[in-house]
Amino acid sequence: MKAGEVMTILDNALRIGKGVTRYGKVAAYIPELAKKDKNKLGICLYTIDGDRFEVGNTEDRFTIQSIAKVMALCLALETFGAGFVFDHVGVEPSGEAFNSLVELDNRSNRPFNPMINSGAITVASMLEGRYSIEEMQKYMQDVCEDPEIAIDEAVFESEMATCARNKAIAYLLKSKQIIDNDVEESVTFYTQMCAMSVTARNLATFGLLLANDGIQLSTGKRLISSQTVRMVQTIMLTCGMYDGSGEFALKTGIPTKSGVGGGLLSVAQKKMGIGIYGPSLDEKGNCIAGCELLGYISEAFHLHIFDQTEWKVE
Amino acid sequence: MKAGEVMTILDNALRIGKGVTRYGKVAAYIPELAKKDKNKLGICLYTIDGDRFEVGNTEDRFTIQSIAKVMALCLALETFGAGFVFDHVGVEPSGEAFNSLVELDNRSNRPFNPMINSGAITVASMLEGRYSIEEMQKYMQDVCEDPEIAIDEAVFESEMATCARNKAIAYLLKSKQIIDNDVEESVTFYTQMCAMSVTARNLATFGLLLANDGIQLSTGKRLISSQTVRMVQTIMLTCGMYDGSGEFALKTGIPTKSGVGGGLLSVAQKKMGIGIYGPSLDEKGNCIAGCELLGYISEAFHLHIFDQTEWKVE
Amino acid sequence: MKAGEVMTILDNALRIGKGVTRYGKVAAYIPELAKKDKNKLGICLYTIDGDRFEVGNTEDRFTIQSIAKVMALCLALETFGAGFVFDHVGVEPSGEAFNSLVELDNRSNRPFNPMINSGAITVASMLEGRYSIEEMQKYMQDVCEDPEIAIDEAVFESEMATCARNKAIAYLLKSKQIIDNDVEESVTFYTQMCAMSVTARNLATFGLLLANDGIQLSTGKRLISSQTVRMVQTIMLTCGMYDGSGEFALKTGIPTKSGVGGGLLSVAQKKMGIGIYGPSLDEKGNCIAGCELLGYISEAFHLHIFDQTEWKVE
Amino acid sequence: MKAGEVMTILDNALRIGKGVTRYGKVAAYIPELAKKDKNKLGICLYTIDGDRFEVGNTEDRFTIQSIAKVMALCLALETFGAGFVFDHVGVEPSGEAFNSLVELDNRSNRPFNPMINSGAITVASMLEGRYSIEEMQKYMQDVCEDPEIAIDEAVFESEMATCARNKAIAYLLKSKQIIDNDVEESVTFYTQMCAMSVTARNLATFGLLLANDGIQLSTGKRLISSQTVRMVQTIMLTCGMYDGSGEFALKTGIPTKSGVGGGLLSVAQKKMGIGIYGPSLDEKGNCIAGCELLGYISEAFHLHIFDQTEWKVE
Repeated sequence: MKAGEVMTILDNALRIGKGVTRYGKVAAYIPELAKKDKNKLGICLYTIDGDRFEVGNTEDRFTIQSIAKVMALCLALETFGAGFVFDHVGVEPSGEAFNSLVELDNRSNRPFNPMINSGAITVASMLEGRYSIEEMQKYMQDVCEDPEIAIDEAVFESEMATCARNKAIAYLLKSKQIIDNDVEESVTFYTQMCAMSVTARNLATFGLLLANDGIQLSTGKRLISSQTVRMVQTIMLTCGMYDGSGEFALKTGIPTKSGVGGGLLSVAQKKMGIGIYGPSLDEKGNCIAGCELLGYISEAFHLHIFDQTEWKVE
Repeated sequence: MKAGEVMTILDNALRIGKGVTRYGKVAAYIPELAKKDKNKLGICLYTIDGDRFEVGNTEDRFTIQSIAKVMALCLALETFGAGFVFDHVGVEPSGEAFNSLVELDNRSNRPFNPMINSGAITVASMLEGRYSIEEMQKYMQDVCEDPEIAIDEAVFESEMATCARNKAIAYLLKSKQIIDNDVEESVTFYTQMCAMSVTARNLATFGLLLANDGIQLSTGKRLISSQTVRMVQTIMLTCGMYDGSGEFALKTGIPTKSGVGGGLLSVAQKKMGIGIYGPSLDEKGNCIAGCELLGYISEAFHLHIFDQTEWKVE
Repeated sequence: MKAGEVMTILDNALRIGKGVTRYGKVAAYIPELAKKDKNKLGICLYTIDGDRFEVGNTEDRFTIQSIAKVMALCLALETFGAGFVFDHVGVEPSGEAFNSLVELDNRSNRPFNPMINSGAITVASMLEGRYSIEEMQKYMQDVCEDPEIAIDEAVFESEMATCARNKAIAYLLKSKQIIDNDVEESVTFYTQMCAMSVTARNLATFGLLLANDGIQLSTGKRLISSQTVRMVQTIMLTCGMYDGSGEFALKTGIPTKSGVGGGLLSVAQKKMGIGIYGPSLDEKGNCIAGCELLGYISEAFHLHIFDQTEWKVE
Repeated sequence: MKAGEVMTILDNALRIGKGVTRYGKVAAYIPELAKKDKNKLGICLYTIDGDRFEVGNTEDRFTIQSIAKVMALCLALETFGAGFVFDHVGVEPSGEAFNSLVELDNRSNRPFNPMINSGAITVASMLEGRYSIEEMQKYMQDVCEDPEIAIDEAVFESEMATCARNKAIAYLLKSKQIIDNDVEESVTFYTQMCAMSVTARNLATFGLLLANDGIQLSTGKRLISSQTVRMVQTIMLTCGMYDGSGEFALKTGIPTKSGVGGGLLSVAQKKMGIGIYGPSLDEKGNCIAGCELLGYISEAFHLHIFDQTEWKVE
């Protein structure tokens, strides 16, 4: 495919996304997020050949929210090893909403997976025992290649004031001895890492890092091990979109993680990283435009993991 | 029945209770409770004619624990009215364990009833907004007619250090806007009221107050309204023994509430109040001796609410 | 209370009931039941002194439906003994809807209680192994003192054609080896016993039998043992109104069982049996008028089990 | 990789599998399956270059059981289209056991996915309305390239005699109007298709068909559409191993479906189909040897979907 064709497809994708934006809503439960302009939309592709294709608001900053769970999982796997991490957090889809306590209390003695809040708080608690939030920030800056990633203090304050449910989850984890650290500090660390401010371009950069097996394209340096990359992509595919993961995998076949800040991180193995920003969310809390247009992009560029058609930008 | 016969039956009951004591265990999850002597057992009956019959360790002090839920419910009903209270807490048996979060998160927007932790913490949070813990203590002293009821500080500290699950419940209630107050203060108030130190005799006195329709026998003064007494007894009968309430109601037919401190409070309407102390607990956390011997006592004195045999101490 | 006053209260009760009839609906899921006139309402009281007070449509025939669960439980307890019966069916409120499979599959290896469908089908299956449906019919005729009680064939056929859910429950019971008999025959027996056609007067008669400790007032003969009566009343109180049992017990304090045919059976111990017919149902499938007016009647006649006021018709 | 090396790895895999066989059990709940020799083990690889590599008992016949769900899904998608099929069955992992009714009754109005019994019975019911069992058999013969695939009558009879749970599921589906056909006929069709007798070689052949995008290698004919192949592989990956799907996907990264007959079907896209037979099952009902050795094979041949290493048999 020629670069011009890629841009045409991206323009179509933007139009498709804009077409559904009005059916979504900005996150209402966090006052600071509720202020966002729901008409914003940006898409950034970063290919394995080093080409970057962008349309729309790809440089707007927004809080990374749940997408931080992916970075946190990478760092935890590299720091503590898969054995330790998966002793504390499972890798099964839960079939429940992202913030459910039910499956944790009722059906298991571990959070089902690290993409739902209970699992991510467990991972954050591990990291909090080893790293300062500044070190976590530095890690996110490195994998996204952007030294300006920083905590959005207004969002952070806003979320700390409304995090009763996450505290409930964290105290439940504590009561089950799944987390050892101080609950308040763990929740603070988790909320801080979710409040890091990124751009769609940052997410595409991080997506490409995973698509390229953990090797930074610009430097050729390995930042993340192959094994971690493989595990993280698998978990994104099976659990990344909460209780809609199965349908999303069927439709797009691209490991993806969403955040209520409006971000979407997608990894098309050996092909490209994709970052999307659109604060208008569907009922499950995913960027409504992004979910719609990713189906189109997946089709157009043959990005579905089980699509056997060869495809390349020339 | 002659008073002598009553004592014979009580002696039998004590022997029956002692027979099963060794099959139980003292509460292990609260370090201070784990130190108790599991062989202790005391039974106190206080009849509507003003007779008190006692055997065993009826003057030993122990923490009231979940039995405080009954006093708290009485005070809340009298303070805020049934309409307000039952807007925030239901009156249905949950079919789940006392400390479950599942039924709260999954099946309802209110705690199922005020005898399980979620419901009792909701009630405690209401009271905390209106009363100091000293006033709560005074209320418990009044209804038990014992000015020496006080917080057992060692148990209180021990429970505060291990109350992660109750905090999880309280934060979940907060996130669902069922409680409005500060979570930490609500949990503290709840834990303090559970750490009040009482005797089997105290419980019999309070039981008699309820059995006598809310009128203090010694003074003839009404302390609790008829309507509250009726509601509290109904809830004790249907929900007082957690997910074993149905079976207990079938067997004994006596509204009863247990506490992990080893106490049992029973109300035999128009007949007597019963207080039992035995720190050896069955698997569900109820005084193992008390549950066993209450079946015998209910049979012997015809205390089952649906037993139509007339019975009286002469 | 004078007889005239009783009639005045009954007239009020009828008016109160009629006032809410329009807010309910006749059972829609069984075509034959959907044809009923939702304005019908009848109340029959039958006191322990042998007085019968009636207003409205107390001689209309309707299918007994779930109220047959009470007769079936009585017969099973008398035939097989409490030990055997409660080995197969629990006595705990389930906190779930009457036709739920969840609590059976998930939380227990026995149906929670004999008042929900899974428990009642288990009881029916026991009886089916011992009795013909004609013998069951004869038993219902005896305890209701009405030789004309018979299967309403149209309703029976209608229900057999729409009983997929009950078959699902029965096969689940079979798969868990809780029932041994042929599933199809058990469901047929159950559906037949639910299709027996009764009047409000029949239910009052049966209610009085239980209120009088199992002794038939007209003959002085004991038809049901004291122990069975006690157990059945307890289970009616804690489980008789499904997941609304707790609230109903709080409000009326009268052991009661409803059927989707519009019937209500109530037992006011040592005082009276009450039979009500009103096919307009509330959302939980209970006679909407009956539930409303029973609160009033309970209050007026002091029928709440924890109401200590003396009351008698003179 | 040389062919000789492939054989060495297969021999190792057989040894690894044999090493864990003794820790498993043959299926006990179906008497006919319980008779199988638990020491049998066979592995067949069929590569996209047309090479077949085999070790052990690859020609033994066994009943296909749940692996038939994959063929049934293919046929249903090709017959009725994805829109119709996924209107009746979801594509989400359930987080519950394969034969659970809970998630169906409680959390959704559709079976979670077509790989669990409720979903597969729904699919079978669709097919039963359109095809005879002989046509289904013919389809299975075609995609497996073996005209000798036939119903194992002894196993079929055995399963029909013990299928109460599947009938419970089917009646629940009927009561929710998810299936329209006759329940008994749907369950019979489902049980017949599960009782088809296949070999490990058959499964490898079918696996290769999917790995080759639906085109039969020997003839170059397209038997299944690309779109169906893509969807089926995705669902196998996310849901194929029941509530262990996530962990299996993490470890092996190969879309796989197991059957309690001891079979395993695996699809390594663009590389090979894998068929395994070993009747010794782990606790979740999967071939214990196969699960173990697939991890090794995946590693050795770089078959994980997110393994970026190039690999080929020369």
